[in-house]
Amino acid sequence: MVRVAIVGASGYTALELIKILLRHPQVKITAVTSRQDGSPPIATVHPSLTGRLDLRCEDLSPEQIAERADVAFACLPHGASTAVIPKILAAGCKVIDLSADYRLSDPAVYEQWYGEVHTDPTRLGSTVYGLPELFASKIPGSELIANPGCYTSTSILALAPLLCAKLIEPTGIIIDAKSGVMGGGRVPKLNTLFSECNEALSAYSVGKHRHTPEIEQVLSEASRQQVQVVFTPHLIPMDRGILATIYPRLTRPATQAELLQTMRDFYQGKPFIRVVDHLPSTKDSAFTNYCDITVRFCREQLIVIACLDNLIKGASGVAVQNFNLLCGFEETTALLPA
Amino acid sequence: MVRVAIVGASGYTALELIKILLRHPQVKITAVTSRQDGSPPIATVHPSLTGRLDLRCEDLSPEQIAERADVAFACLPHGASTAVIPKILAAGCKVIDLSADYRLSDPAVYEQWYGEVHTDPTRLGSTVYGLPELFASKIPGSELIANPGCYTSTSILALAPLLCAKLIEPTGIIIDAKSGVMGGGRVPKLNTLFSECNEALSAYSVGKHRHTPEIEQVLSEASRQQVQVVFTPHLIPMDRGILATIYPRLTRPATQAELLQTMRDFYQGKPFIRVVDHLPSTKDSAFTNYCDITVRFCREQLIVIACLDNLIKGASGVAVQNFNLLCGFEETTALLPA
Amino acid sequence: MVRVAIVGASGYTALELIKILLRHPQVKITAVTSRQDGSPPIATVHPSLTGRLDLRCEDLSPEQIAERADVAFACLPHGASTAVIPKILAAGCKVIDLSADYRLSDPAVYEQWYGEVHTDPTRLGSTVYGLPELFASKIPGSELIANPGCYTSTSILALAPLLCAKLIEPTGIIIDAKSGVMGGGRVPKLNTLFSECNEALSAYSVGKHRHTPEIEQVLSEASRQQVQVVFTPHLIPMDRGILATIYPRLTRPATQAELLQTMRDFYQGKPFIRVVDHLPSTKDSAFTNYCDITVRFCREQLIVIACLDNLIKGASGVAVQNFNLLCGFEETTALLPA
Amino acid sequence: MVRVAIVGASGYTALELIKILLRHPQVKITAVTSRQDGSPPIATVHPSLTGRLDLRCEDLSPEQIAERADVAFACLPHGASTAVIPKILAAGCKVIDLSADYRLSDPAVYEQWYGEVHTDPTRLGSTVYGLPELFASKIPGSELIANPGCYTSTSILALAPLLCAKLIEPTGIIIDAKSGVMGGGRVPKLNTLFSECNEALSAYSVGKHRHTPEIEQVLSEASRQQVQVVFTPHLIPMDRGILATIYPRLTRPATQAELLQTMRDFYQGKPFIRVVDHLPSTKDSAFTNYCDITVRFCREQLIVIACLDNLIKGASGVAVQNFNLLCGFEETTALLPA
Repeated sequence: MVRVAIVGASGYTALELIKILLRHPQVKITAVTSRQDGSPPIATVHPSLTGRLDLRCEDLSPEQIAERADVAFACLPHGASTAVIPKILAAGCKVIDLSADYRLSDPAVYEQWYGEVHTDPTRLGSTVYGLPELFASKIPGSELIANPGCYTSTSILALAPLLCAKLIEPTGIIIDAKSGVMGGGRVPKLNTLFSECNEALSAYSVGKHRHTPEIEQVLSEASRQQVQVVFTPHLIPMDRGILATIYPRLTRPATQAELLQTMRDFYQGKPFIRVVDHLPSTKDSAFTNYCDITVRFCREQLIVIACLDNLIKGASGVAVQNFNLLCGFEETTALLPA
Repeated sequence: MVRVAIVGASGYTALELIKILLRHPQVKITAVTSRQDGSPPIATVHPSLTGRLDLRCEDLSPEQIAERADVAFACLPHGASTAVIPKILAAGCKVIDLSADYRLSDPAVYEQWYGEVHTDPTRLGSTVYGLPELFASKIPGSELIANPGCYTSTSILALAPLLCAKLIEPTGIIIDAKSGVMGGGRVPKLNTLFSECNEALSAYSVGKHRHTPEIEQVLSEASRQQVQVVFTPHLIPMDRGILATIYPRLTRPATQAELLQTMRDFYQGKPFIRVVDHLPSTKDSAFTNYCDITVRFCREQLIVIACLDNLIKGASGVAVQNFNLLCGFEETTALLPA
Repeated sequence: MVRVAIVGASGYTALELIKILLRHPQVKITAVTSRQDGSPPIATVHPSLTGRLDLRCEDLSPEQIAERADVAFACLPHGASTAVIPKILAAGCKVIDLSADYRLSDPAVYEQWYGEVHTDPTRLGSTVYGLPELFASKIPGSELIANPGCYTSTSILALAPLLCAKLIEPTGIIIDAKSGVMGGGRVPKLNTLFSECNEALSAYSVGKHRHTPEIEQVLSEASRQQVQVVFTPHLIPMDRGILATIYPRLTRPATQAELLQTMRDFYQGKPFIRVVDHLPSTKDSAFTNYCDITVRFCREQLIVIACLDNLIKGASGVAVQNFNLLCGFEETTALLPA
Repeated sequence: MVRVAIVGASGYTALELIKILLRHPQVKITAVTSRQDGSPPIATVHPSLTGRLDLRCEDLSPEQIAERADVAFACLPHGASTAVIPKILAAGCKVIDLSADYRLSDPAVYEQWYGEVHTDPTRLGSTVYGLPELFASKIPGSELIANPGCYTSTSILALAPLLCAKLIEPTGIIIDAKSGVMGGGRVPKLNTLFSECNEALSAYSVGKHRHTPEIEQVLSEASRQQVQVVFTPHLIPMDRGILATIYPRLTRPATQAELLQTMRDFYQGKPFIRVVDHLPSTKDSAFTNYCDITVRFCREQLIVIACLDNLIKGASGVAVQNFNLLCGFEETTALLPA
């Protein structure tokens, strides 16, 4: 059994992670941490865990975490991760980080988009980006894995096959993305109040969303060319799900059938990618680790459509997928059948 | 033209009030107040008011409010109202208070349910309770009107005709009430986050909701007997609307037709009460000042069902109805046609 | 491996059932039936099953079903079940029927509430009512199990411990029940359109909902006294979840602690019942086979609150729970960890 | 008073239209038609109209409609309009048609996109397209007005100022549009069931939505060049609202300020267009006749964002706006203050 700690357990990705890990036959959750007063039972923080996990939320030090666990999942806000992860690693515990802190490889880019100096810059260039469909081979020996962002995974999974095959231009790719509200976290804020989001639809962070450099970095690395995207996120009145409607320019004429085949070949043997013929709905992949992708044409314009559950394939599910690869378990353990 | 101030303009009831008052031919909104830094335009606080109201949110003193306005609508949280209303009144401006501060007539009951000593107790016994269907005659000369709560209005309007006719027992009345989330206000809190409320249904404040003593006081006064209710509120994943399903015990056998007729007689000439034959949906009275009521039997058990828009008939609409009566305007001005 | 058929596979309970059974290590789904033209792949009918189940929806005869499967789950509308189940049984296949057809034990009661003469009346008195928390011992040897209704299970699980302990009066029990929309099925109807249900709340079928006699029959049988309820269902704008707020009369004074303990004792060793201290939300049991129950007092009035996922614990989950008991598998197989 | 008939009164746009017209001081609704049996009261068809409109839904002939009304609003499905409108016109009654039947000017284009031969082709070239912000001058003398589609109005209002100023290329304009579900109508269909739409997000009719030729025709006419768009509609789990995120290519460098000013100049004096600085939400224009528009840049890519209420500014509100212009009333009558 692998002993696992959940660091920062009060949010939605932590809850989702716990639910998945409770189904994992090789995992024992040994610690859940948060800074709440009085070490409340986790079932008080997340009532859905009543009768399912009998642990208290403790305010543990990095050393205590490393003593209790072989692998820690860090579900902290960006900035908070770099404050504790180096110490957890130093104490001999592996870490899968769900924050954005170790995703970018260039400290200057981090500072530009996050407005803060990165406090652990030497790890940036060397940390594995945990998108198993692209980087599975790098994961097994790692001590730290940077779990991808939700918009990021959706966009990268949709575009990587076509960029790698040089079927689309690497620049000016328009990504019109739509997300459910749970991706916004569990800290009370005006813009994620029910009465603000319900029956409402708007774009936000246009031209400045922090997943932009992450998408570009990973696609550039994967396709060995400078990729540049136009990324527009929208908030949708639903709990979970991201759908990206993507408008790339073809480098040469191609048919829908040819493009779908390119995608199917690219994702051959990848258990969580479904290249589908129909127009996918977020509801079809909700509560699963699947990413559904298809392509269409409108006149000569190619449209790539991809969707996934932002809390699972976009966060906690792929974290467990990474964990499985890290520990040498079957990649689909606890994730399939969904 | 009556000059009107909105005191505490950043919340949902204030917004709703402004929208209604903008349709009122006899009203000029002359001030909107809030404690926000920098006196932002009201359209910054409420983007839906863009192009509709060109005022800034100012942090005005009670005296400044009274100088600018003939009537002030106070949309403050309970406790905050008593801090400013006496001064606004002293400065010669009438007030319609949408908070709970002046609804109860007994300071001891206030203290019991709100956990604070009332700081303006002498006004408690003498303030008009602004439910025009019951107390219209008392409103015209008032300087201060206590606007009713949303659950309260729904429950009272459903029960008053039957209690006054002594058709139902005054005690043990079960009120199973369901409310949309906007009634919970616009201050960020965990329990009104989209991701907590959406796709969720639960009871809350069971046995201790503060509208309980208000319902009992007003129904007791209206029917001249000691009324006692069992009140259970539930939170429903929708913006607006309250529906109360009420289970009273009949004092003598009666038919559905007889009870409906009693209600229709009671509300004869009341423009906002619709005693209907069908089972009403909150959607049918949403965005209007109507309250829909019907009765049914399940075996011998009487069931009274009432619903209204908690932001309008349950708050800002009835406030304007009170305002119309106070100022001698047609009761339906700015409210009908809806 | 047990070979399983899903009869009537195009609806929501069938979809949910398939998803659960795909996680069952002892089950092979060998047939899915529907009357759709052209035997479409099940993934065309339910796109979420893409890549998860490679079967076509076939229009099979009862004999063909029995040839392919050891156990058939019937997900047909009431009335349709009695047309095929006797033939499936006659051909040697066991059946778990999710319709209402075999739940009532008296053909006259069936006719009164369903408006049709029952065509297989001899089986009514002898069919096991598949609520395992009450009737687990009767399930193993059965050839036919009547799977309970969703409102029914919620109400029965909430009330059985207190009725059996004679702590509450058996008559006049008010059940104010609220349900998500998926319980209304997948056949297009005006009253389950998005634009009718969304942002709407209403009671329906007041005094005449067909789960009423079912609740009364089972509770009467379980507590050996004539139980009579007042049942009021409401439609809530959310996909799944039922919450029942129940107002029984105590037979003698009792405390909240005593009543909770009575419930905990009653459900000792039952893995899917969580007697909780907090006020449960439907979201906490959504997508699980749990039923959460608590009690509260409002003055002297006892309030019992219970909730569950109407598609799982209220339909397909309990069907698998019944299947497990029928086949001698661990009761929680494919259902826990949730 | 202008006597008005609503032809095809059972749907959502008809309901919305009735609500607006009830506020119109110069209108008397004299007939509401539908094919329902038994001439039910309109309040039976639309319970929200209880106490507000005392008419029965009658199955009237075109001649009867023309006898009762000066202006008829046709809220029929496409194809059904052409069957009755010529006869209503022939009988001397003016018509505002909310269907798609008279929007396109070329019968061949109609046939290509709607799959049917147009049965009244001679009127196609000559019917006014009722988008008052562009064609107000043509409306007054008309006998027939083709009311625009909802996606169409959103797209045209967003793009017309920039196309007319030749600031953007006329081809390859990507319109990623998102719509609430009420636009899908009130006829029960699988894809507009609550349980299909709620918590779901998908694109639909990609490359073949019928508003495509309408957008292109009107923008081409308005800007006197051949406009060609890539139009992708999405269904959003909310009642009302359309938001279009549009990606045009600039013909020359321009700033956000310059583009906003171009828009403000273009819509000078147009009471329903709000060119805003903030990112608009559909909720801010919901239940109003406003269209909110802004522009942003993401790197060099221009993004135009527009939204409106698809039932009001996208259908019934603009229909009344057209009606006002047709009859010589103030354009904003019954529409502002909203």
